[in-house]
Amino acid sequence: MTEEAAFRPEARNPRGFQDKRARDLRAERHILETVSKVYERYGFEALDTGAFEYADALGKFLPDSDRPNEGVFALQDDDEQWMALRYDLTAPLARFVAQNREGLPKPFRRYAFGPVWRNEKPGPGRFREFIQCDADTVGSARPEADAEIVALAVEGLMATGLKRGQAVLKINNRKLLNGLLTAAGVQSEGQKLGVLRAVDKLDRLGPDGVRLLLGEGRKDESGAFTKGAGLNARAAEQVLAFVAAGGGTRSQVLDNLAGVIGGSAEGDEGLAELASMDAALRSLGIGEDQASFEPSIVRGLEYYTGPVFEAELLIETLGEKGETLRFGSIGGGGRYDDLVARFTGERTPATGFSFGVSRLAAALRAAGQAQASEARGPVVVLVFDQNALGDYFAVVGELRAAGIASEVYLGGSGMKAQMKYADRRMSPAVVILGGDEIAAGTVTVKDLDLGRQMAQGVTDNKEWREGRPGQVTVPRAELVSVIRRIVEG
Amino acid sequence: MTEEAAFRPEARNPRGFQDKRARDLRAERHILETVSKVYERYGFEALDTGAFEYADALGKFLPDSDRPNEGVFALQDDDEQWMALRYDLTAPLARFVAQNREGLPKPFRRYAFGPVWRNEKPGPGRFREFIQCDADTVGSARPEADAEIVALAVEGLMATGLKRGQAVLKINNRKLLNGLLTAAGVQSEGQKLGVLRAVDKLDRLGPDGVRLLLGEGRKDESGAFTKGAGLNARAAEQVLAFVAAGGGTRSQVLDNLAGVIGGSAEGDEGLAELASMDAALRSLGIGEDQASFEPSIVRGLEYYTGPVFEAELLIETLGEKGETLRFGSIGGGGRYDDLVARFTGERTPATGFSFGVSRLAAALRAAGQAQASEARGPVVVLVFDQNALGDYFAVVGELRAAGIASEVYLGGSGMKAQMKYADRRMSPAVVILGGDEIAAGTVTVKDLDLGRQMAQGVTDNKEWREGRPGQVTVPRAELVSVIRRIVEG
Repeated sequence: MTEEAAFRPEARNPRGFQDKRARDLRAERHILETVSKVYERYGFEALDTGAFEYADALGKFLPDSDRPNEGVFALQDDDEQWMALRYDLTAPLARFVAQNREGLPKPFRRYAFGPVWRNEKPGPGRFREFIQCDADTVGSARPEADAEIVALAVEGLMATGLKRGQAVLKINNRKLLNGLLTAAGVQSEGQKLGVLRAVDKLDRLGPDGVRLLLGEGRKDESGAFTKGAGLNARAAEQVLAFVAAGGGTRSQVLDNLAGVIGGSAEGDEGLAELASMDAALRSLGIGEDQASFEPSIVRGLEYYTGPVFEAELLIETLGEKGETLRFGSIGGGGRYDDLVARFTGERTPATGFSFGVSRLAAALRAAGQAQASEARGPVVVLVFDQNALGDYFAVVGELRAAGIASEVYLGGSGMKAQMKYADRRMSPAVVILGGDEIAAGTVTVKDLDLGRQMAQGVTDNKEWREGRPGQVTVPRAELVSVIRRIVEG
Repeated sequence: MTEEAAFRPEARNPRGFQDKRARDLRAERHILETVSKVYERYGFEALDTGAFEYADALGKFLPDSDRPNEGVFALQDDDEQWMALRYDLTAPLARFVAQNREGLPKPFRRYAFGPVWRNEKPGPGRFREFIQCDADTVGSARPEADAEIVALAVEGLMATGLKRGQAVLKINNRKLLNGLLTAAGVQSEGQKLGVLRAVDKLDRLGPDGVRLLLGEGRKDESGAFTKGAGLNARAAEQVLAFVAAGGGTRSQVLDNLAGVIGGSAEGDEGLAELASMDAALRSLGIGEDQASFEPSIVRGLEYYTGPVFEAELLIETLGEKGETLRFGSIGGGGRYDDLVARFTGERTPATGFSFGVSRLAAALRAAGQAQASEARGPVVVLVFDQNALGDYFAVVGELRAAGIASEVYLGGSGMKAQMKYADRRMSPAVVILGGDEIAAGTVTVKDLDLGRQMAQGVTDNKEWREGRPGQVTVPRAELVSVIRRIVEG
């Protein structure tokens, strides 16, 4: 013990991990709670898988590598098997479905939330642990299943407090561009990936930059050259016309797309799927402003096989230098019909959506749309007299029974420090119960909310003082109602 | 891609990790929600630290060992530092307080919940990941802070649905036995630990077995010898008298203890702390049946420095062979005044309690006290006619708007499989909307809850059939109210 005491570790978070206090947690929990309720109303059931998966189940089994830690946190178990912390909630779902497919209802509709871990370079606002909240339907190939996923993402966003016009679900279908490229004679998977990569840069580089990346390549300002996808000029123009086919209502975009995808079988399939989704979205009451077709959406290069979705926040906020900031994507998903087959060899259609909860919480807060009174602390009963602790505990017992968060100050300091404590906790009020009050059967209540509101200029001093004095002494029996009036504002 | 497809990983959980489905999750979430509310009412604020801590912060830094994985899941970060997944919520709290002490209110009252990980040998019902829910007060040396922790553990247990008499908080104080041993001339820390280990076996071995372990040692049935603590006979009898001092009200036990702890300064300090706790518990309205003093409680050999608490479930359940099972401990805690000082060198008093949430959920379920209707699924709208999908989605839209979980069947199978699906999901009802119904402006509802209740013999066939027919066809406008009647039972 004495040897160990000599060594003092530094108290610090691991790189890229953060501590979250009440304010952040309330915002996140509010999102999880409201979004979960939407998911359940849509008939999705909760599932929670463990933090670890075997590395091979995550597709991270690299026979040539000692540690399969590319992007994941991996370690070797006692029995030599490599395990890794999940980096999303989709891979564990695929494993779960493959493992339990006999016993599951089909389709299997599940939602899940919890932390995921990415072993990436951390940075400001870029953490290696964050919360996702997903809903997936496994075992339905219907485009209506995709439409429902979009609808619940829309409803989920509204449930968190966003208003219409503040967010939009953008929908695309991988089969469209694939079909176009096939019809244009592009066969190589590598070339197709190159096209996706180029399209993904549309926001940043504009059509001219993307044209270069679709063709031979592009030299940036620094002189660095990025090799292009190598399309011929005609194919490149077709791709550019395709990504420009968005805007307008869903059926207008469908019309535009029909003119530019060049009539391949796969492209037609993609169009038909989008048309079915449009019909289902209409039946589900999802407006054009809530979900639109947007051919320029790429959603990474991952495992998607058909429709892809991206949730975009449209609210803007001002940055530190007064510049306009847009939050952009706060979630996404799509159809991934091959993921379960990695285990079973049987194609199992699946589609889903994932909210970036931490990111959404930060965005809502920055946009001033987080819940009010989120940092509110407990009522604090000050300790005047060590011999009256029994009276103080009786007071908090009464307040708690009335559902009012409260506590007796349990530190060792005097009145000034106790008031500072209450202030730091954002207490709505303090209760003062000195010898005089106890003898007279009264209690004194100091309204701290009032002081804070006046300090913030939220309220006019005089007007409030009339209806709401800063400090009152009332009969003991009126304590709960006096406090309740302050707490409820 | 083709090469990877050739390799099929086996779909399996990592050893000692489990998947939890809706039923288990609802029970756990119900506990977390209700217990959190109690914690907040007591003035505790939420905190969430990351999954990882640096290994040295967990006291797991072993300079001679390559991998500090004794009991924890550890890995080395890119910068060579060892990180480990937290094995409890107390060590991260100590790190957080040491790291942020300037900015925190003092005392700092926080609650936290989430998974913790132990790298131990898994077994049946013994997992390597489980949920804890903790409340701690850091920065108060007052026994009243300990009493509050006990009170909120009691209230937390009640909030989960346990009734009075079904659980009890047992309280002891390390200073009592320490004082007794010091007065009896026992100086060595090793000997004191040996005494704690012996006392911890009281339940299993009884006083005679413990007497041997307090003295020279004990040979068990197999002939294996366990070395004892080496107390002389008089000291051993004092210890046995001490652990037998429980039973009766808190003040009776205090009287008993005064007679057996032998008057050391440390023992007297422990007695005075328990007396203060008793007074505060009374002021807080905590009954003798809810919290008792029990000198035989040891709570492991960890870092506790004063009062220790253990929550014990008193409800019994029948095992598979008809034997009586008691769940025993479902949480515990105590005062640990040295934990923050590991980082800062400054003694920082702290006390707290931790619920074993997964264990409590399992116990409540086994005792038949989990929430009713916990496995209830959504209302399922059957798909009769592919061309009527729009009508089906309009129906679920209406039901969901009324707060009723519902979905359109989105698989590809026929009526029989659809009914089987609804049954598997524990759907309260299915909605049938065929061409005739659509033409007539009606809808047919089949009550699956009724079928299940009759199958379980919960209800009498005839009596129910009168008020609640198994299947009805009603005007479309009455759909929501008919379904609501079924869902609300």
